[in-house]
Amino acid sequence: MSKRILVVGGVAGGASAATRLRRLDESAEIIIFEKGPHVSFSNCSLPFYLSGIVEDMESLVLMDPETFKAQYNIEVRVNNEVIKINRSKKTILVKDLSTGREYEEHYDKLVLSPGASPIRPNSIEGIYNQNVFTVRDVVDIDNLKTYIKEKSIKDVAVIGGGFIGLEVAENLRLAGMNISLIEALDQVMAPFDYDMVQILHKEIMDHGIDLILSDGVKKIGKDYVELQSGKIVKAEALVMAIGVRPETKLAEEAGLEIGETGGIKVDRNYRTSDKDIYAVGDAIEVYNRLTKKPTRLALAGPAQRQARAAADHIYNIPVRNNGVIGSSVIKLFALNAACTGLNEKQAKAAGIIYDYVYIIPQDKVGLMPNSSPMHFKLLFEVPTGRILGAQAIGRGNVDKRIDVIATLIMMNGTLEDLKELELCYAPMFGTARDVVNHAAMVGLNILNGVFKQVPVTKVRDLVENNAHIIDVREKYEYEAGHLINAVNIPLSQLRQRVDEIPTDRPVYLHCRSSQRSYNAIMALQHMGFDNLYNISGSFLGISYYEYFNDHVTGRNKILTEYNFK
Amino acid sequence: MSKRILVVGGVAGGASAATRLRRLDESAEIIIFEKGPHVSFSNCSLPFYLSGIVEDMESLVLMDPETFKAQYNIEVRVNNEVIKINRSKKTILVKDLSTGREYEEHYDKLVLSPGASPIRPNSIEGIYNQNVFTVRDVVDIDNLKTYIKEKSIKDVAVIGGGFIGLEVAENLRLAGMNISLIEALDQVMAPFDYDMVQILHKEIMDHGIDLILSDGVKKIGKDYVELQSGKIVKAEALVMAIGVRPETKLAEEAGLEIGETGGIKVDRNYRTSDKDIYAVGDAIEVYNRLTKKPTRLALAGPAQRQARAAADHIYNIPVRNNGVIGSSVIKLFALNAACTGLNEKQAKAAGIIYDYVYIIPQDKVGLMPNSSPMHFKLLFEVPTGRILGAQAIGRGNVDKRIDVIATLIMMNGTLEDLKELELCYAPMFGTARDVVNHAAMVGLNILNGVFKQVPVTKVRDLVENNAHIIDVREKYEYEAGHLINAVNIPLSQLRQRVDEIPTDRPVYLHCRSSQRSYNAIMALQHMGFDNLYNISGSFLGISYYEYFNDHVTGRNKILTEYNFK
Repeated sequence: MSKRILVVGGVAGGASAATRLRRLDESAEIIIFEKGPHVSFSNCSLPFYLSGIVEDMESLVLMDPETFKAQYNIEVRVNNEVIKINRSKKTILVKDLSTGREYEEHYDKLVLSPGASPIRPNSIEGIYNQNVFTVRDVVDIDNLKTYIKEKSIKDVAVIGGGFIGLEVAENLRLAGMNISLIEALDQVMAPFDYDMVQILHKEIMDHGIDLILSDGVKKIGKDYVELQSGKIVKAEALVMAIGVRPETKLAEEAGLEIGETGGIKVDRNYRTSDKDIYAVGDAIEVYNRLTKKPTRLALAGPAQRQARAAADHIYNIPVRNNGVIGSSVIKLFALNAACTGLNEKQAKAAGIIYDYVYIIPQDKVGLMPNSSPMHFKLLFEVPTGRILGAQAIGRGNVDKRIDVIATLIMMNGTLEDLKELELCYAPMFGTARDVVNHAAMVGLNILNGVFKQVPVTKVRDLVENNAHIIDVREKYEYEAGHLINAVNIPLSQLRQRVDEIPTDRPVYLHCRSSQRSYNAIMALQHMGFDNLYNISGSFLGISYYEYFNDHVTGRNKILTEYNFK
Repeated sequence: MSKRILVVGGVAGGASAATRLRRLDESAEIIIFEKGPHVSFSNCSLPFYLSGIVEDMESLVLMDPETFKAQYNIEVRVNNEVIKINRSKKTILVKDLSTGREYEEHYDKLVLSPGASPIRPNSIEGIYNQNVFTVRDVVDIDNLKTYIKEKSIKDVAVIGGGFIGLEVAENLRLAGMNISLIEALDQVMAPFDYDMVQILHKEIMDHGIDLILSDGVKKIGKDYVELQSGKIVKAEALVMAIGVRPETKLAEEAGLEIGETGGIKVDRNYRTSDKDIYAVGDAIEVYNRLTKKPTRLALAGPAQRQARAAADHIYNIPVRNNGVIGSSVIKLFALNAACTGLNEKQAKAAGIIYDYVYIIPQDKVGLMPNSSPMHFKLLFEVPTGRILGAQAIGRGNVDKRIDVIATLIMMNGTLEDLKELELCYAPMFGTARDVVNHAAMVGLNILNGVFKQVPVTKVRDLVENNAHIIDVREKYEYEAGHLINAVNIPLSQLRQRVDEIPTDRPVYLHCRSSQRSYNAIMALQHMGFDNLYNISGSFLGISYYEYFNDHVTGRNKILTEYNFK
């Protein structure tokens, strides 16, 4: 007898599960229930409709119910919300939202892919005003765009500096709005460390967005927002993008187990605590391969993989579950920013002993058009050298480098493996020693104690405490901008000026991007100097790290001029 | 006592070895001997000077002897050729090319990085004419460009369709020349299989280059070239780029062992048969990790890695030698083409049992600007599923996908590993199920016998022998261009028209890119059909495969119209 499989939710996870199920069983009866009016839309593309990069709202919807029926013999019931699961009877209660009618459907297997909903804190006064929007589906984005257009709105506040917040802010900015981006933490994009994220802060600021950190919304008015700090921000419309909450109500009410992170608990086969009910996507709790702890991950790629795995398991096909590492990428104006695995905050929280490198090599051969510096941070476990994570920001192909690291993490690779990777090279695409190879070499030096480093985050302290800093760039570079109090001894004069280097206290060296300071340190160490530190990221890294906060706080600069090239 | 280390050759391998040696030993005396006038130039960037993408010839030279001295305390003697090694005395005989003086220098360790020289077959009449050029160094490329300019040359023949040949042809074409590209094999770019390379052939032809395959040069005249076939090609200048020969003369005369492939034989530490002489770069024989056989590989990345390893070994630092896999990438007009590991020819030659998939997914979400199809071929070992190699061609980031595959190959990854890779995704950068994940899924289906496939290379046979081919695209797609004799049963009508599908003979299915034909096959197989084949690459793949040869040979088309979208 053929199986009857019902799927709750028709976006990434639900649609993928259903089509995979069809390929595994031509005779199964498969029905998708979607409470919204659309199935299988590109939720990741929604923000691009605001700027017109995606011109046509219809194009956001990838498949309609008719196509599902015709191509896959899958029935899709949009505007039908599943409101209850009766596990003992193996039925669901469905509400047809267009008629209000409620009806039951029997299942042999049930797949839950309800997703996650944008958080709207009730504590904010005016949170349900008509000028407050969230971005979850095609209807949401259409409402927002229509409202902006009809009311000729110029000032928009975007609350939350995560993926959706940034993409919405950018696309509205591209459409000519004045944007205030308000984030409760001291940085946007939590997957990036505080040092790396300053590069994004600069980009946001450089594009005329008013970036407000460490502040939250208290009250939403008709044409303004009042922040916790008391600050008033002009805003005729507001987009809430502070995060999402997994849609677990249905599962919870059915008595399915909920995990410690608040997502639906599933086993390695994406089966809930009921053997006939599976759950996938943003609503579930997954296993982090690196921290070895449960987590949640609202990303389309993992959702699709989980959906396929759940479908496979229903048909007794063995499933591999490698856990998640969390790989993501975002375009932000002229920059691309990608990351994978753990950042410093996460590694610390997980109690993992780690170290890191921060390098800024060119993303392709310097002679080539559009060659530009790539900021690259790599974390590795101590003492094993196992790769833990990476963050990359630049104008070039950061995603390429992060995908290589993600692959290595999944394969339990180490710095030694990364150093030896034989990647494809031509001057238009990279350098003979790619960014990632380079990072591994520096990482091995750090891991093996070949030289010591201090992070860019500590440079202000060094300068303020009159540490002995040597800038080994050429004089003309030094004169164009340098750390206050830094001594200039170009690498090209170093060997003649060794007696100028003190031996009675720590000496900190930097150049533009640490290539020359590394060579300087190696030479000096061979001469017997043993209290030397390389400033990780060097002057380029320092410039980026200091810039945003200098401008926002008006604090004293620790350098005479920035250098971003 | 400090070591005296001499380095022969000052480009990628030599310069890298010398600087690494300096970092390992401040007191060593290090001298680079370079017979040309420049050290450390970007040989991979040379062709770009022809089009003006690299505007300034000087910029091709990355470092001069003065900078080497000042920054690294390394002496560089340009225009000094090492003409003999006296191993028993541990000396080299050097000829100062500017004065003709010969002199000896003693070494403790010697590093050979002599490179490889462009082949000029003596059998070609006129091969040493003044209008015949090769591209090895800055002087060569300057000579070529100057000659073209001074003689106002319009017609150039480029002999050889490898990396250098294609890059020279493209850059001269961009500079407005009429180009004939002549290749002795039946395809350009040997690292790509014959099916994949047709995409490059089309691109070359579409950009107005006269591409002549399976033909060689017999005689070079003043303003023409006579080919083996008797064909006369107009050419006032000619660039020989048929390959390189490792510079082994010095090593051979010194009695150093030469490997079976003609490169200098080295051990795992890049040490020659003399324990005090190392060799790196294009002149050596390396170990192919996949074929498990010696090979040669003229690429900058491996050369740099070898140089570093040799330097490390001189200072007793253990070296890892993973062998090579051969990863490379080229830009060709609007296309990017990258590959890694083995192609079909190589796998066959090595006696490896393999299978493959050829898919053509979008390189990013279809809604995004510049989304375009990526041709992707993946080879894997049977029955292990171990990844053996991949080839990718398209307008987008082929290098990203190939780097992921290269990483997996180095880590001994399988199709299962590739399927589960968690790569970074946003609509501007890829798709939630990336090209490489997708390839793994199809690969597992092939490996597990879930469905059968025939390659695009066999489609002509099928059409000519009246095989039963079903095109499951929609009617409007079929009508815009289809295989002659193919029957159109859209996937959306398949289940209603099952009785039109014969059971007494093989049935071949395709759609645009095999997404729908895959679903069709799965459905039909569940209904009991068991003699079905998917046409790998589908109509898009067939179009690309047939186009070039149809146009060049004027043979009968097997399709009514091509489709390249």
